Amino acid sequence: MTLPDRGFPRSEYEQRAEQAQALMVAMDLDALLVSTEPEVRYLTGFHTPFWQSPTRPWFVVLPAAGTPIAVIPEIGASSMAGTWVDDIRTWPAPRPPDDGVSLLVDTLREVAGRPVGPSGRIGLPMGHETHVRMPLSDLDALRDRIQPLELVDATDVVRSLRMVKSEREVHKIAHICGIVSGAFEGIGDLLSSGMTEREAFAAFRMDILGRGADDVPYLVGATGPGFDDIIKQPGDRVIQPGDLLMFDTGSTFDGYFSDFDRYVSFGRADDDARRAYETVWAATEAGLAVIRPGITTSDLWRAMANVLEEGGPAGGPLGNSVGRLGHGLGMQVTEWPSNTAGDGTVLVEGMVLTLEPSLTWAPGRMMVHEENLVVRADGPELLSRRAPAEMPILG
Amino acid sequence: MTLPDRGFPRSEYEQRAEQAQALMVAMDLDALLVSTEPEVRYLTGFHTPFWQSPTRPWFVVLPAAGTPIAVIPEIGASSMAGTWVDDIRTWPAPRPPDDGVSLLVDTLREVAGRPVGPSGRIGLPMGHETHVRMPLSDLDALRDRIQPLELVDATDVVRSLRMVKSEREVHKIAHICGIVSGAFEGIGDLLSSGMTEREAFAAFRMDILGRGADDVPYLVGATGPGFDDIIKQPGDRVIQPGDLLMFDTGSTFDGYFSDFDRYVSFGRADDDARRAYETVWAATEAGLAVIRPGITTSDLWRAMANVLEEGGPAGGPLGNSVGRLGHGLGMQVTEWPSNTAGDGTVLVEGMVLTLEPSLTWAPGRMMVHEENLVVRADGPELLSRRAPAEMPILG
Repeated sequence: MTLPDRGFPRSEYEQRAEQAQALMVAMDLDALLVSTEPEVRYLTGFHTPFWQSPTRPWFVVLPAAGTPIAVIPEIGASSMAGTWVDDIRTWPAPRPPDDGVSLLVDTLREVAGRPVGPSGRIGLPMGHETHVRMPLSDLDALRDRIQPLELVDATDVVRSLRMVKSEREVHKIAHICGIVSGAFEGIGDLLSSGMTEREAFAAFRMDILGRGADDVPYLVGATGPGFDDIIKQPGDRVIQPGDLLMFDTGSTFDGYFSDFDRYVSFGRADDDARRAYETVWAATEAGLAVIRPGITTSDLWRAMANVLEEGGPAGGPLGNSVGRLGHGLGMQVTEWPSNTAGDGTVLVEGMVLTLEPSLTWAPGRMMVHEENLVVRADGPELLSRRAPAEMPILG
Repeated sequence: MTLPDRGFPRSEYEQRAEQAQALMVAMDLDALLVSTEPEVRYLTGFHTPFWQSPTRPWFVVLPAAGTPIAVIPEIGASSMAGTWVDDIRTWPAPRPPDDGVSLLVDTLREVAGRPVGPSGRIGLPMGHETHVRMPLSDLDALRDRIQPLELVDATDVVRSLRMVKSEREVHKIAHICGIVSGAFEGIGDLLSSGMTEREAFAAFRMDILGRGADDVPYLVGATGPGFDDIIKQPGDRVIQPGDLLMFDTGSTFDGYFSDFDRYVSFGRADDDARRAYETVWAATEAGLAVIRPGITTSDLWRAMANVLEEGGPAGGPLGNSVGRLGHGLGMQVTEWPSNTAGDGTVLVEGMVLTLEPSLTWAPGRMMVHEENLVVRADGPELLSRRAPAEMPILG
């Protein structure tokens, strides 16, 4: 597979803006306001880890027609100038008494017309999986000061756009999934009993980076005869013969994530653990068998849940505490939609999903399995390389 | 220096809770509500990269007396049970129609008394450098449903606690600063002209990890005869003789950050660049000379700004777009306070700060210098190893 191009051509951002604007018309919105890293990056291409600093808010306003307007701290002006955005408005942040609020109010009034535009409605993501990244006191002031303009929920605009990936996006995700698949397949050369968890984490992180990942922002794991903390950081525990080990990583290439886990055992594995592995593997297989455009995330959930209910030896109907059996994947390690009984999102071509069945196979012992795929016209195309059908036993 | 212990003893969390509760009494708060990673980790010890998933909100409620209550998704129960928190209340997230809101409302009513507690006031960070990490529609519903209880700004509670570090926290920051200092000092063995930016970034990241950092969440940099994008990701540019290179990294040990940068040049450096380096170095020296408990961040700013104003060859009074000359440092790569003309925070022993003077030395060319320190009774103790007084020229 060829190395994916870095970034996106201008045409891809134009297309995103046009698609957003088509949805905005349908929702009678004069503008869309976003404040979080993935939304800003999706609309502009602005890509920096600087978002880890909580000090400064960042805004992008997409008018009903035309290109996005960046309303950002001065420190980001040079970086934003490297994107397709022409209209960059800055203030000298941090400036707590007015940290961008007046500049944003003016911008929103301008794009929504004055005193009130065609609808007076500004879309802002307010729904599930979103938050507004600015101080609440400033947000309250913003809502007050833009009146009679009003902020209304525009989660659906960003949700429906971001759920469906372009081929360029899929290529980046496929690339990082390939890198991580290789790392998991080579894990037997890397790890052995006698290492500490911390040593195992460090070796695995370095290995993924050495294979060409840009970064490994998400790495959790556990070791032991069994465990149910599946979002854990490493400890000083020494890996013992007979232990299970789970690693789950979201690694990145050009700002796009893989997200899948693998279990292995050291020396031997007991029958219950092996059966649990085979059950979650089979549940994944059942999910893969039903995926095609037109089914829903709930159909997909049901196909996997049936296998888990038959095979799950303990812990209630599904015996998992994860709350879903997979999710969307892309610029974030998890994205809309969720594979749940009630989600009901219709799958369309280009959606990138994880299948993530899990079950509690003994008290306090959980087994999670995960694969990444893109929905194609004729079914799923795996982006992670399929895990072995039986749990690997490291020598 | 001995390797810092991982985590903190229970006594440290008890002390944090007691200090918060003392401030809460003064502000007439029945409880403190937090929703973001550093606040939750600070009060509980809950430490996982799972926060990168935007799907689920997480809450911790600290009552006016007693220990914190975790109101969290089921998937985190096992991990939270490993902390000092006993009262863990969960819901099966994601559940968009009621994603923890009812459980949180019930918990707040309970700790604030029913129908209204002593004050009816629940503190929530709403001020500068904070945001509320939950969907805005759920936050609006929460504010409505807890009436007559009300949410009021409690930024000062978390701000004043987190700004002053314990010796255990300082030890972790000092450790990661030492690791990164070593990486910067060895950069001449790692980099050479002819490498691409991407190769240089990858080599530097691996080197820091190889020296014992847990992770390198923040790495930005630039190369060229000069540049003013100081939050940049690498490109395919090949480093040329005569180039400057800047790396700025926030690396971590046990959840605590270093944050400082270094500039080097390849083969030679022109006089203007050298003078700019010496000016920001001297500004840092001026900052270090005035630091002691009792002065303010604005005094500190003034000491550095004076040097920059004298030495800065271009770009207005300070010729920088950063908006401040350093900041707090700890669980996040930047924290309160900011070294600005108007910030006015009084320095006290145990504050960990960066000094970060910057100037524009030619149009589109910026120079930033940064060191990390802890405020001691008799002045600053450097945590980063002081940069050379003249710009290093790599062979």
